[in-house]
Amino acid sequence: MDNTRLPLLSTETPLRADAVRNRARLLEAAARLSAEHGAAAITMESVAAAAGVGKGTVSRRFGDRNGLLQALLDHAEQGFQASFLSGPPPLGPGADPAARLRAFGPALLHHQRANRDLYLAAEPAPDRRFLVPAGRLRHTHVAVLVRAILPDADADLLAHTLLSSVDVVLVDHLLRGHGMSLDRVEAGWHDLVDRLLP
Amino acid sequence: MDNTRLPLLSTETPLRADAVRNRARLLEAAARLSAEHGAAAITMESVAAAAGVGKGTVSRRFGDRNGLLQALLDHAEQGFQASFLSGPPPLGPGADPAARLRAFGPALLHHQRANRDLYLAAEPAPDRRFLVPAGRLRHTHVAVLVRAILPDADADLLAHTLLSSVDVVLVDHLLRGHGMSLDRVEAGWHDLVDRLLP
Repeated sequence: MDNTRLPLLSTETPLRADAVRNRARLLEAAARLSAEHGAAAITMESVAAAAGVGKGTVSRRFGDRNGLLQALLDHAEQGFQASFLSGPPPLGPGADPAARLRAFGPALLHHQRANRDLYLAAEPAPDRRFLVPAGRLRHTHVAVLVRAILPDADADLLAHTLLSSVDVVLVDHLLRGHGMSLDRVEAGWHDLVDRLLP
Repeated sequence: MDNTRLPLLSTETPLRADAVRNRARLLEAAARLSAEHGAAAITMESVAAAAGVGKGTVSRRFGDRNGLLQALLDHAEQGFQASFLSGPPPLGPGADPAARLRAFGPALLHHQRANRDLYLAAEPAPDRRFLVPAGRLRHTHVAVLVRAILPDADADLLAHTLLSSVDVVLVDHLLRGHGMSLDRVEAGWHDLVDRLLP
């Protein structure tokens, strides 16, 4: 190991803090573009322009457009995770498990809808579909709630069933292919949860 | 149009009937190989050998291995469809809708398990996942049963939820990735249906 390089890290600290802020600003600009015009509107140039920086700055942070999309999905996912893990009730802690479960479906549907293009672009191959960390965290969360509400149920399986009912690919098919409204899919989640509740 | 070629069709009629029998025999041999040794065991050579014909005969019928796999899936699917559309109860007509719905999940699970490699190899891209004719027929069947059992439910959505709970990719993940037993997944289907029943 070349320990003579270590001091460089500390001289870089102010720059790295700046880079962190830069990265957050670029991701916010990209999220805004995506929400307003769809993921297709996200290019290295449009994000640079929206954030008021040069294209080179975007390239240095994310490499290419795909790197930017992945980072954007992580960013959106973290906000959603915070909302159900530590946000206000009924989605977050403080409400009873049934109320939290009822609130989870619509929250996930809206989160997925706001990032639909990103999720569809990032849809994993079949053998990786249930291995994505964000999906596993959602499953754990829903299984914990199910276990609290229905101690005699197979919470692991039922959590998969609940999450499958609002899967991003299925919902996109229902909304775009069948002209179904998001309200109807939300009502379907509430109906499903209410039928399963004891 | 060159109508002088038309008479050739009628002179080929005896040959075509023979070809149909040939095709069925090859597909049966391939299905047997798949059931006993997995889809990986299906090659143009192994199917030819199992059916007692030359490799050229298999090539003429199916083109290549992928054509053979697709034809095999159609063949397996038709048998499964016949079982729930016109087979004996409780899966087929004659039993009440709740009994038919209860029987459908395990039947689908066993059908998918017997053809697992084929289904995983033929898993469509996300934008085609809910457009496969066989999947649409299953959905229609389950929605009809749900509508009969729960007239006040959103049968269309609930049918998607029920089918998603035994999706071939999910079940493969549960069995191979989590070491879950098929019995447990079957019990999960029965538990889900029983909780939804009025």
